[in-house]
Formats: sequence, C-alpha cells, structure tokens
Amino acid sequence: MIKDTVFAELTSVLEGRVTRSKSDLEVHGRSETWFADTPPDAVAYPQTTAEVSALVKLCHAHDIPVIGWGAGTSLEGQTMAIHGGLVVDFSKMNRVLRVNDADMDAIVQPGVSREQLNTDLRATGLMFPVDPGANASIGGMAMTRASGTTAVRYGTMRDNVIGLEVVLADGTIMHTGSRARKSSAGYDLTALFVGSEGTLGLVTELTLRLHGQPEAINAAVCAFDDMDSAVNAVMMTIQMGIPMARIEFLDTKSVEAVNAYAGVDFPLKPHLFVEFNGSETSVADQVSSFGDIVQDFGASGFDWASKLEDRNALWTMRHNAFYACLALKKGCISVVTDICVPISKLAEAVQETADDIAASSIEGPILGHVGDGNFHAILLVEPDNDAELAEAKRLAHRMAERALKLGGTVTGEHGIGLGKKGFMEQEHGAPAWAAMGAIKQALDPKNIMNPGKLVP
Amino acid sequence: MIKDTVFAELTSVLEGRVTRSKSDLEVHGRSETWFADTPPDAVAYPQTTAEVSALVKLCHAHDIPVIGWGAGTSLEGQTMAIHGGLVVDFSKMNRVLRVNDADMDAIVQPGVSREQLNTDLRATGLMFPVDPGANASIGGMAMTRASGTTAVRYGTMRDNVIGLEVVLADGTIMHTGSRARKSSAGYDLTALFVGSEGTLGLVTELTLRLHGQPEAINAAVCAFDDMDSAVNAVMMTIQMGIPMARIEFLDTKSVEAVNAYAGVDFPLKPHLFVEFNGSETSVADQVSSFGDIVQDFGASGFDWASKLEDRNALWTMRHNAFYACLALKKGCISVVTDICVPISKLAEAVQETADDIAASSIEGPILGHVGDGNFHAILLVEPDNDAELAEAKRLAHRMAERALKLGGTVTGEHGIGLGKKGFMEQEHGAPAWAAMGAIKQALDPKNIMNPGKLVP
Repeated sequence: MIKDTVFAELTSVLEGRVTRSKSDLEVHGRSETWFADTPPDAVAYPQTTAEVSALVKLCHAHDIPVIGWGAGTSLEGQTMAIHGGLVVDFSKMNRVLRVNDADMDAIVQPGVSREQLNTDLRATGLMFPVDPGANASIGGMAMTRASGTTAVRYGTMRDNVIGLEVVLADGTIMHTGSRARKSSAGYDLTALFVGSEGTLGLVTELTLRLHGQPEAINAAVCAFDDMDSAVNAVMMTIQMGIPMARIEFLDTKSVEAVNAYAGVDFPLKPHLFVEFNGSETSVADQVSSFGDIVQDFGASGFDWASKLEDRNALWTMRHNAFYACLALKKGCISVVTDICVPISKLAEAVQETADDIAASSIEGPILGHVGDGNFHAILLVEPDNDAELAEAKRLAHRMAERALKLGGTVTGEHGIGLGKKGFMEQEHGAPAWAAMGAIKQALDPKNIMNPGKLVP
Repeated sequence: MIKDTVFAELTSVLEGRVTRSKSDLEVHGRSETWFADTPPDAVAYPQTTAEVSALVKLCHAHDIPVIGWGAGTSLEGQTMAIHGGLVVDFSKMNRVLRVNDADMDAIVQPGVSREQLNTDLRATGLMFPVDPGANASIGGMAMTRASGTTAVRYGTMRDNVIGLEVVLADGTIMHTGSRARKSSAGYDLTALFVGSEGTLGLVTELTLRLHGQPEAINAAVCAFDDMDSAVNAVMMTIQMGIPMARIEFLDTKSVEAVNAYAGVDFPLKPHLFVEFNGSETSVADQVSSFGDIVQDFGASGFDWASKLEDRNALWTMRHNAFYACLALKKGCISVVTDICVPISKLAEAVQETADDIAASSIEGPILGHVGDGNFHAILLVEPDNDAELAEAKRLAHRMAERALKLGGTVTGEHGIGLGKKGFMEQEHGAPAWAAMGAIKQALDPKNIMNPGKLVP
C-alpha cells in the first residue's frame, strides 16, 4: 500500500503524472498470458531520468516496490505487481536521443518501441535488428534479454546493448559501458543489467549497436513432409555456417493457425520461413547453398519473396503467429513457453515436445527461432478451466525439464519473471543461484526493485 | 606471509605440488612490462577443480590472497602478488575436455593455450578465433576479456565464452551458463566473470563457442602515404559493413621494427594488414570492395597472400610486432598501453597520440586492431631510467584521458590490473565504480581473490 501522504509526494515530484485511476491500475496489472491480475497501487509516467530518480528515492525511503513497464508484452509475469507498489511506465520517455551514423550506434530512451526506432533509422541506412515479434519497448527488451527471429545472425539484446543509464534502488543514477565497441575496463555491468528484469534498477537510457541495412535481402518459405526433416535441415544449415538472417520453424498446427488468421493457404505441413541478408553476391551464394540443403531434406513449395511487400507480408504473418494461434480456440488464454537447447538436440527436443502435447488433452502449436535452438509452445487453455491450465503448466514444466536434460536453458528469450523462478536453482545450481541473490542483495538491500521476480 | 603450518596443509592438499622455490616465486613475480617484481609466498600447481577448491578453502580460512596464473602474458600487472599470497598456476590443468562438433562448442580447462586449442581443433573443421597475439591461456584470456586481431569479425572473449566453472572465494564450485546459444534465465554471471581478472573467483573450466574454419581465406598488406589515409580507409571499410576477419594498422615506426625483426622490407610507410574469411564467392566480393576503398585512399604496394604459408608469415610478423618493437631499443622495457574509441574518433585519437609521442623524449610505435577502434602504443624505456619511465607513463596517461574525452574506454583489451585502476572511477563514474565494489564485496567479503586489482 502507498499511503496518501506518500502518493501526494510522488504526484508532486511528477507534477501530477502519477495516478491511481482504476483503468490505469487495471491495465498495468494484466499480463499477456495466464497470470492472475495484480493491479499496482499507483502508476507513474516520468518524462526524465531525474524524475525517475526522484520517484525511486521516495519509494526507497518508504519501502515501496518499484516495477518498470515498457509495452507490457513480457510473457512470464515480469511486470506483475505481486507485492503492490509503483509501476513506472516509460511511455513518455520514448525519444531516440541520438543516432551516430558513423559509429553505427544510437542512444535511446527505454520507452522507444522497436518499430518506432527502425522507422526513425530508415533514412540512415542503419537498423536495429533485434526482433522479438511483439512491438516491445527497447527498455523492456533489454530487461528480458530479448531476441527473436534475427538473433541467429545479429545476436540478442546481450550483444546489441553497449551501454546503459540506470537508476539504482536508492535513486542514484549510474552509467555503464561506453560507445567503444569493446572494453576490458572492469566488470561488465551492462551485461549484468541486461536480462535483470528490473530487479537491480530501472533503465533510463540505452546505447545500442546498430547494423547496416543489407544491400540485398531475400526470403523464402518451404514445406517439409515431417517435423524431423525441417529441423534437421536447420541443424545442417547452421552447422554449414550459412549466415542466415532468420530461420523460423512452424509446425503444422501453427501453419493451420496462420492460414486461418492471415487468409493464406500454405500446405498443412511443417514449414521453414527464412531470410538472407548481405551483398547481392553473398545473398545469391547463401540462397544456393540453402537450396541444396533443403532439397536434400525433401522440401517442397519453395516460394521466394525477394520483393519487399512479399517479405513484409511473410514476416507480418510470422509476427502475428502468436495471435493466430490464440485465434485457433475462441476466447482462450495461453501458456506460452520457450526453451533453448544445443542445436544438436533440437530435433529430439521438438519431437518429444510435440509427442507430449499430442498425448495431452490440449492443443499447442510449436514454432520458433530454431537457428538458435530456441522454440516455443503456445498452449491453449479455455479461460477459467483449471484442469486445462494445470495440464498446460505440466506440459510447460516438462518442456523446461527437457531443456535442462539436453544441456539447454529453461528460457531462450522470454525470461524468468514469476513463471520460471522455480527452475532457477535447478538450471544454475545452488551456488550460482546464491551468487545472483548476493548480487541482488548488494545492489538492492531493501528489495524494492521488482521484488519477487527472478532472484531468491 | 603464509605460515609454515599452512604451507604444509596446502602442500598436503596438492600432494606436494605447492612450492616456495626461489625460481618458482621469481617467475611468478614478474610481468611482461614495467611493473616491479612481486614474488608471491608460494605457487600451487593444481590438476583438478577439486584441488583448486581445497586450496581456496584453506586460503579463505587463513586470509591468504589467491592469484590465478595462466601464461603470465597479461600487460597491466594483473598477476602481481602485491599483497603476497598464493599463485595458482593452471599449467597442469591444460586439457581440452570435450569438443562438440555438431554444436560448435568446446569445454576446456583454463591452462589450455590458444595455439594448443586450435591445433587440437584442426581436424574438426572448427576454430577458436580469439587471438590476442601472445600464446595466452584460455583462462587468462577470459579473465582479461581479451580480444585481438580477429575481434572485428568474431568478437572478444565476452562473445565467445558461453559458460564457466568457477571456484568462488570460499571454495564453493559454481557453474554459469549452459551449452545453449542464448538464454534469458537470470543474471548473466558468465559475462560478469569474464573480464573480472580473478577478483571474483578462479575459473576452472570454460565452455567456448567455436566457429567454422572458413572455406576461403585471403590476406593482404598495403601501404599508405600517411596515417590519416590508412585510418580513414579502415573507418570507411567498417562503415561499409565489409565483414573483415582482421584489419590491423601499423605505423611507420612499427613497420621499421617488423622489417628489422623479421628480415623483410616493407616500405617505410603506415600499413594495413588485412584478412578476409568466407566462401570463395564472399571472399572475392570482400576483396573487391576493400580494394576499391583503399585505392580511393591512395594505397600502394597491395600485396596478396592467398597461400597459407604467406599468410602464416604475415600474421607471425604481426604477432611478433611487440617483440619487434622492443628490439628497436636494445635491452629496453616497455609501457604497453591500449585504448579503444568509437570508430569515428579513430583518426583523431591515433593522430593526437602520434603527435604526443613525437613531441616526447621517447620512442613509441603505434599499432592495433583498428577495426574495433582499438590501438596500442609500445612506449620504449631504458631499464632503470626513471625519467623515461615517468615520461612513458605520462604519455600512456594522456592516451587514456584522450580515449575518455572521445567517448571511448581506457582499455579495449589489456584490462585494468594495477596499471589502470586509477582511471576506473573517471571512466565509469562514482556510482558504477561503487557498484563494482559492492559486487566484489558480496562475492568475496574477505577480499582474498586477487586483492588490490580492478575494483575499489
């Protein structure tokens, strides 16, 4: 609970931009998946780092939990206000502060969305390639160490955030990293904060690595007779070192969902959606090598999309696949889960997961960024059907255990939040789990930064 | 000081492989550069993680400093036993434990050398590309977040270490990371430990990302009329997105040193040494684009080395450039320093540094991994000439300040150790410097792990 006097102080610091309106609390108490609503006590809309610092100082003084909010698209309950407190919504800190063309970097505020940034960059010949599908905020993407379709080529947020401005738990403003492309100067605080899900501080500014827009792009869709052939084609492609820009797997159920949602008619078979970036020569080279591989695995319906509008249609379909899957079962909610395994274990992990879902009482399309060994199941659950929800959770649980058994991780990109905290000790072992707790304790001794998430 | 009773305990734990012999203490008390010798109290040669853990437990109980030792090639005094204590030499933990061809990763012990690993990998078609020049140990390279000639293409140790086994300050054995290519599961402890210079624990095992040996390699040397043209050609190459495997700058003085040391006769002009990796088509494509750029900047003496033996000779010369520079001044020692700036500031940083050295009383060749914005000065100092040493330190100091002024870092790859600790607060600011101290305090409250280095 936030006392009225403290609320008045918070409001005064932000010149009124702190609210307890029912609708604001409701919106900021929801998740995109199955977590029960947890409305916070108040929502703040800061416009500057100084305002964030002032807010956090007050919360620190009064032991109020502080939860950062970007676009609300996280999938493991990262933003749920389980202990109440203040949600800090960064939607008014959404400016691209500087683009350094020559150094291929940009400094942005956390509320900038992925799409907004790339629209801003269009004329510069540069792009920010990390693409989790949702039009997430850059700050949120950094906090969950997001990745998505292009990570196989361009890396994840870990690789593309080179510096941060952070408001620490006591309100201190800290800077990490620099604009240099590498450094050996001390602990990598940037990497420590990327993926910390708001448990160590609030990010108020990010320095991002940009990439040149490729001279040539080509994309394709191809169908396989079975899941194994598709996944093995991916494994071979990665092992051959073909620098794929995207290589996405959709199982038959996902294809059915996409067909219905987007009004297209892909054959009802497992598919790969792929993209190649580079110079004209390099793309032609990649296309030819990839073509040889998928032919060996019996691919059919090889359909190229070298035109921009065709490619946009293709990736819009892929990005909407989550919503397409939800539309398979009217009014349903979902348990969306992701795991990531070493590429040699990918076929095994996907097949076992598919078998497990097939043997269950619910539907669950499988799709994912298979070039990284990363895939998702979207487990569809009737609202208020506790038996189905329990079944979905059991399937997700077994997926996570499967990932660990195969030398992987319980989440490649969705993060831990509330949903996967129970796996942390199992994945990392007691000493690493304790070390994370010690770091959290050292930087946030009062445990006000997103309490209850990620760490012990 | 280590008491005789404790020494007896340490010896007993390692079945005799702990020594206080004068020669062992001397060897482990030296650096490759200008730091005064600081022999430790004892040197241990563990063979297993369990032995390392037992050693550290004893040191923890008796408040004995613990300093890791790989190949002793660090350049900022990282291994100096300034508070005495036990040096843990990893030369007997030098096995490649496993190579996973299909996943392109390997698990190695810290004492494996870079060259040994690549020799082991030769038949697999894979390679570990990080190449700081010296035949450093992989453990040491991880601890200083090393990089070198190939970082422009393949990244640094930050990008190529995906998991660690670490013995913490109290002897606990901790594991970080997994064999998955990416993860969003909690704090990135791997990244925190890479670059920590042994101040948080001793690394006893590393999981490394490997890369395919390129199908085609080409290399070249070209000379420029002036430094500015060479550096601007690099900037243009990087901005054009040509995926250079190496792009190295040598100033005229470095070329003079290489000529004398390797018995070659490059023209006495600034040079670039470059390498291209990829498919046959892609390499041809890169060579052509790069050729166009350097021609625009007036390059001459364009000399290709597509044959393996020519390339080996070329990179051996580059790797020996440090020793070649030392040989310029008989019996000298050196202050070797490195900075890294945003690529747009590279010409300015190099030119100002060259002018500063030219105006000084000592010689200092400049060379470096300019594709990252990273370069070195090797400042040559007569032994026992305090005035020259002071002058070299002043020049190095101004280089570091120049890097910060230009938005860069005081070290791109050599690390902090003793030599650059004085810049940490200036580079990172008081809050980040304090956060590093808090993390150190949380994980090593007795301050026994490489005390006095890197952190407050």
